[in-house]
Amino acid sequence: MSALAPIPPTLTWRGDAFGHLDLLDQTRLPHERVVLRLTDVDAVVEAIATLRVRGAPAIGVAAAFGLVLGVRALNPLPQALPAVARDVAMRLAAARPTAVNLRWALDQCLDALRREATLTALFRAAEQLWADEVATCDRIGAFGAPLVPDGGTVLTHCNAGRLATVGCGTALGVLFTAWNQGKRFRVLATETRPLLQGARLTALELAAAGIPVELCPDSAAAGLIASGAVQMAVVGADRIAANGDVANKVGTYSHALACFAHRVPFWVAAPRSTFDLRTRDGSQIPIEERDGTEVTQLGGVAVAAPGVAARNPAFDVTPARLLRGIITDGGLVEAPFEPAIKALFPAGR
Amino acid sequence: MSALAPIPPTLTWRGDAFGHLDLLDQTRLPHERVVLRLTDVDAVVEAIATLRVRGAPAIGVAAAFGLVLGVRALNPLPQALPAVARDVAMRLAAARPTAVNLRWALDQCLDALRREATLTALFRAAEQLWADEVATCDRIGAFGAPLVPDGGTVLTHCNAGRLATVGCGTALGVLFTAWNQGKRFRVLATETRPLLQGARLTALELAAAGIPVELCPDSAAAGLIASGAVQMAVVGADRIAANGDVANKVGTYSHALACFAHRVPFWVAAPRSTFDLRTRDGSQIPIEERDGTEVTQLGGVAVAAPGVAARNPAFDVTPARLLRGIITDGGLVEAPFEPAIKALFPAGR
Repeated sequence: MSALAPIPPTLTWRGDAFGHLDLLDQTRLPHERVVLRLTDVDAVVEAIATLRVRGAPAIGVAAAFGLVLGVRALNPLPQALPAVARDVAMRLAAARPTAVNLRWALDQCLDALRREATLTALFRAAEQLWADEVATCDRIGAFGAPLVPDGGTVLTHCNAGRLATVGCGTALGVLFTAWNQGKRFRVLATETRPLLQGARLTALELAAAGIPVELCPDSAAAGLIASGAVQMAVVGADRIAANGDVANKVGTYSHALACFAHRVPFWVAAPRSTFDLRTRDGSQIPIEERDGTEVTQLGGVAVAAPGVAARNPAFDVTPARLLRGIITDGGLVEAPFEPAIKALFPAGR
Repeated sequence: MSALAPIPPTLTWRGDAFGHLDLLDQTRLPHERVVLRLTDVDAVVEAIATLRVRGAPAIGVAAAFGLVLGVRALNPLPQALPAVARDVAMRLAAARPTAVNLRWALDQCLDALRREATLTALFRAAEQLWADEVATCDRIGAFGAPLVPDGGTVLTHCNAGRLATVGCGTALGVLFTAWNQGKRFRVLATETRPLLQGARLTALELAAAGIPVELCPDSAAAGLIASGAVQMAVVGADRIAANGDVANKVGTYSHALACFAHRVPFWVAAPRSTFDLRTRDGSQIPIEERDGTEVTQLGGVAVAAPGVAARNPAFDVTPARLLRGIITDGGLVEAPFEPAIKALFPAGR
């Protein structure tokens, strides 16, 4: 199959509450299009932990449908359904500790179950989440598109596109929207070691959309920024603290430092579900550390001397002071961040 | 062959002026030990251009012996030997444009030829360069070792070790010397995409010396520095301008920005031959851009969507303001850099 063959949707639920989840295996991209048919919660946990589905908004929706699969397997439904469902949700939440959307999505579903303890209520909540996330991407795109420079180059890191969401993306949603509005620009996509989401996913999505894209090693971004090659940066987020500190894919912090040093506006694009007001600042965000073999091996082949271990944090924290702002589905958030973030949630959270 | 088998010398000249150059093919590390027997200048140009030999000091010495091979092939030696030799030298110098040691080493040899236009004089100059570079590494190690924290972690980028020189290394020479003096510390080696010199070469050298080393993706360094995991950074250099700006392997600049933000002392270790006083500042240093397939492919296998191009600058420039100092064979250079660098060359340069 050609690597430029159409890209199937990130995930699609097929049928009613007794249907199944079709999930694109992103570890096989860009070269293969493999859609997995998931029919039980264990398969969803595995898909999230191994990054077959990744991106904070997408794993939230995947987990919601995973909860549907886990709850419907309880036959007959237990009396204490909300409590039992919470145990299933905790297994899903533990699959990736940093992205807060995962917990937020599961909380939405558990709330629905508490209101009405039926499989149908849970399934409707998951479907609603899916629809909401599509609309959320559209709103982020609309708020962010005016910020994109016409004729410039935009840097992005990792993948915050269609493949990270169930809609048009967050950071890439901004770019797709601007492009569809007629703006013309180029994208510099960092490859995003160790798992190369920039090279494998972002470059694929942008090329498929006809947007000119060039890759660079993560290490090359700072020098290219210094040389004037970049006019804007926009990335996604996995968790945003109450003070505006942003956890995102490892490497984001170094790009933000370089943009700040050279006065390139650095934007984060994320739905309101990415904010965690109970996390005061970035130092409180748990950073997932993944297996070192993701670094010491490439495609199963050892690249380092045997016996050499590796540090492999999956995320880092960019302090709010380096951000030009945050593009949310509720509008732009700019400094001073703490009150602006509070204002995003008038009913509290 | 085991990847922890002994590592042959970077390069060794065998015999008299009519001998040949044995050169370790570093592209085959860490898994293979392949020593190439080079008998003509074309083979040396190819070895430098394809990074079979790399590291600013090492390619300087390799080029000097390459000049010997090129000149001795002229039979009979032309009347205008220095001028003809200069043409050969220009081919060698063009193999890598950024590292200034290459030109400096060739200039030393051409000067010797101008004093005495014989193959023997040229060969003696190349041999002298080799011996001088060994001693230079020892002096850098001696000046730098007191800076290494006992019990801490030292970050290094790319490879500035034995494999980058003909001695004990520059940045790694500092670490080897401190270790041999009884200091105990750990090393965090960045993998150094796209060609993975950190994973393939630095981790190999340190593990072989019994120094504890962990790898990390280049993108992970900033977050680890922010978390307090690093107490010192030391890297090599390919060219240092008169104002102290340093061109080194791409990615150096982002590590220096992170160290500066978190008050981790960032040192550069380099011989005086790396300084180029005719280059006023970093903006004047030519940055080699290598083929994008080094980024889009890994081990010959495409990782990016087909048709997607890549930027692949081999170096970046770290401004002097981010440096704690420069460890040279003439002593430590600290801010203010411009007069301190001038003082390194009392006879001018």
